[in-house]
Amino acid sequence: MDIGSVNYLPYEDFVDVFGNVVEKCPLITAAVWSRRPFSSLADLEASINDFIDSLPESGKEGILRVHPDLTGRDLQSETLTRESREEQVQAGLDTLTTAEVSRMARLNTEYKDHFGFPFVICARMNNKATILRQLEERLRNERTIERACAIDEVKKICHLRLQGLVVPETSNKL
Amino acid sequence: MDIGSVNYLPYEDFVDVFGNVVEKCPLITAAVWSRRPFSSLADLEASINDFIDSLPESGKEGILRVHPDLTGRDLQSETLTRESREEQVQAGLDTLTTAEVSRMARLNTEYKDHFGFPFVICARMNNKATILRQLEERLRNERTIERACAIDEVKKICHLRLQGLVVPETSNKL
Repeated sequence: MDIGSVNYLPYEDFVDVFGNVVEKCPLITAAVWSRRPFSSLADLEASINDFIDSLPESGKEGILRVHPDLTGRDLQSETLTRESREEQVQAGLDTLTTAEVSRMARLNTEYKDHFGFPFVICARMNNKATILRQLEERLRNERTIERACAIDEVKKICHLRLQGLVVPETSNKL
Repeated sequence: MDIGSVNYLPYEDFVDVFGNVVEKCPLITAAVWSRRPFSSLADLEASINDFIDSLPESGKEGILRVHPDLTGRDLQSETLTRESREEQVQAGLDTLTTAEVSRMARLNTEYKDHFGFPFVICARMNNKATILRQLEERLRNERTIERACAIDEVKKICHLRLQGLVVPETSNKL
């Protein structure tokens, strides 16, 4: 689908296609439909990022809290969204050793107890080694900095999900 | 569940229980968890309403756009959320005559084409006659007034869904 076709979508279809570019937040996609027409994929992405930035800090924490734990109960019970499952599998998170699963679970719990939201990272830009290292490092962040850092990861995840749904402008010219 | 127990819920459980008090907007519930402890059910409800009011106008339209059409494809294909289905059935919307279904579909389409979001009404505070009448009347509203009117209905729906999940304070004293 190219951006011209995107601009013609009624809101129902727009939300069907883009409703999970920010995990479990179709409200954001549905809000951004008000901003069409989009001049490019980058313009659509910027509108989503602007909307996220416009939310109060509690709203940003809300976005984080509807994300699943990495390698958590959702991956085991297969209740992840399709997008999250593919991203976690691509990062090798379904092939952790028992020791790695325990370490991840312990760090995830420590992180959530400390910050009140789950550890969010763009799995497709990482692998299990860098994910574990960043989880340990980010646990030491001050709360405001860590919230901003996690929201940056939400935006990276959104960027890659959008790339998979809309043909980038350069490809259109081929 | 009473409000004391609600205040002890970790965010995952809080979102599991209250994630759909605003239809398909778990982001809102997850955001409001930051405001606990709540002194009462009314305090929790006020926090949700405050969060809704804090959103930009596009965000309020986003809330409306993730709502299903009344008597629309979701009711027919049984893809409504449990809460929406119960509310639509309670208002008698699953027993419309063919003529009423056609009229509702025509008015819904007209409403969506005009406003860019679906007609939202607290079905449990209405019946099929009052719903059809209000749909016709509200179609004539100015856009800003109608958006505010629809958001008031979202808050009424949320009020009744909350009442079904938390024991009101008066009952606690019995």
